Amino acid sequence: MTMLKFTKMHGLGNDFMMVDGISQPFDPAAAPIAAWADRRTGIGFDQLLLVERPARAGADFRYRIFNADGGEVEQCGNGARCFVKFIIEQGLSDKREIVVETAKGIIKPRMNDDGSVTVNMGAPTFVPEEIPFVLRGGETAGASSHIVVNGLDSAEMSMVGMGNPHAVMWVGDVDDAPVEGWGEALQRHPRFPERVNVGFMQVVDKTHIKLRVYERGAGETQACGTGACAAVVAGVRLNLLEAGADVRVDLPGGELTVSWQEGGEVMMSGPAVRVFDGEVAY
Amino acid sequence: MTMLKFTKMHGLGNDFMMVDGISQPFDPAAAPIAAWADRRTGIGFDQLLLVERPARAGADFRYRIFNADGGEVEQCGNGARCFVKFIIEQGLSDKREIVVETAKGIIKPRMNDDGSVTVNMGAPTFVPEEIPFVLRGGETAGASSHIVVNGLDSAEMSMVGMGNPHAVMWVGDVDDAPVEGWGEALQRHPRFPERVNVGFMQVVDKTHIKLRVYERGAGETQACGTGACAAVVAGVRLNLLEAGADVRVDLPGGELTVSWQEGGEVMMSGPAVRVFDGEVAY
Repeated sequence: MTMLKFTKMHGLGNDFMMVDGISQPFDPAAAPIAAWADRRTGIGFDQLLLVERPARAGADFRYRIFNADGGEVEQCGNGARCFVKFIIEQGLSDKREIVVETAKGIIKPRMNDDGSVTVNMGAPTFVPEEIPFVLRGGETAGASSHIVVNGLDSAEMSMVGMGNPHAVMWVGDVDDAPVEGWGEALQRHPRFPERVNVGFMQVVDKTHIKLRVYERGAGETQACGTGACAAVVAGVRLNLLEAGADVRVDLPGGELTVSWQEGGEVMMSGPAVRVFDGEVAY
Repeated sequence: MTMLKFTKMHGLGNDFMMVDGISQPFDPAAAPIAAWADRRTGIGFDQLLLVERPARAGADFRYRIFNADGGEVEQCGNGARCFVKFIIEQGLSDKREIVVETAKGIIKPRMNDDGSVTVNMGAPTFVPEEIPFVLRGGETAGASSHIVVNGLDSAEMSMVGMGNPHAVMWVGDVDDAPVEGWGEALQRHPRFPERVNVGFMQVVDKTHIKLRVYERGAGETQACGTGACAAVVAGVRLNLLEAGADVRVDLPGGELTVSWQEGGEVMMSGPAVRVFDGEVAY
């Protein structure tokens, strides 16, 4: 039995067990990860984030992500912020912008002077097959489409691919938005063949929105990073938000800042908090 | 800012942040305890258990218990097991039986050779005013009373005080027991003026029961220690279980062993598991 050092961190309540796999040997087997993920009999976390040496030239670190069931998954926006802060606070790098190799390619998160972290979330896609979103016969892809949610309700929604599918709709007041009902109904909708994350966006002004997101497979969540990106992208395309500006996104779990302009990549900034350091047998 | 060392432990999924307040200074203020209790932005636990030097002569240690809201409370059976194991594993004592001063008096938990811990849970009370339980006019206190649960259902139940009020009923199959429905209904019942914990006990044989417990204020729980004690006491009084024998109690969260005979105190044994050691700023 050896001991494994770890650090617990969170970004807007999305919480992570951070493991430095460079300074100590670590084999990310599914069984111990699932046991540690238990919030009562283990350490408790949404995901385990592992720092490894990079395989590709030009990258500083390799970033691997494991879900609470022990399975390896792709990128996570809230996790990337914690990843960078952890690397810098561990003394693994003295750079402020880290070149990170992920399962989906290279990302370059940057730690800011105020301790927040900015992550390049990549370019959004509006190509229906890539989102994926099914056009009706004769319909062309635009900034929004009219969706019949169920027999009673319908709304204009903006479909955005951020590595995962999003449908964003503009509402007058997020507190009154039908998040659970419509979110649930759209999971079975034939126009979203891989289901969809549904965002309800209230525009406060051109650089400030309030947002609630129904995540596929999870229901309403506290702070969906890709949902915040999709909402700002949709708002800029509809001329509700200022292109290229830092847009403040108020989510139930806290605040993110997102900027985007047509043709560019989405930059998202937010907090990353170190909670405690620990050591566990394995 | 100083650093506080702690250990995370659990007893049948009831989890604790253990703090050695002898080897390091610690002021148990409510605000940091409540922040640490958060399962996403903190450490996550049901209670913080604090080891201090005793105030009374004859005691080895003082045992203080803080709920997740930071408020100080009285004894907890699952916590006492972790408390003893922590003290021994920290090297604070080389005794196997520790004399512990609590808000409710002295307890003497003992660590067994197999790593399990036995806690003296005190003598049960059957005095209606002490439980508390309201007798009907003309009724005398006995091993059980007939309770009209609601307009439709009624059952024989054994009322036992274990520092908190319990009503235990014998069922043929715990898997089919009306735990939520009857548990909820009895919270508003006029015969239980301080509400009641409701146990549903299936007798496998004279030294083995299966038990599900509805805890007041919490609903059905994984492993209620005082509920296990109350059930064995009720079973012994009804001659369903063997007096003085080690009775195995299968709870949803795991297994406890309880023994009791008329006139004596209740002894409860069960596991205490160390999960990890940590260090947090405060």
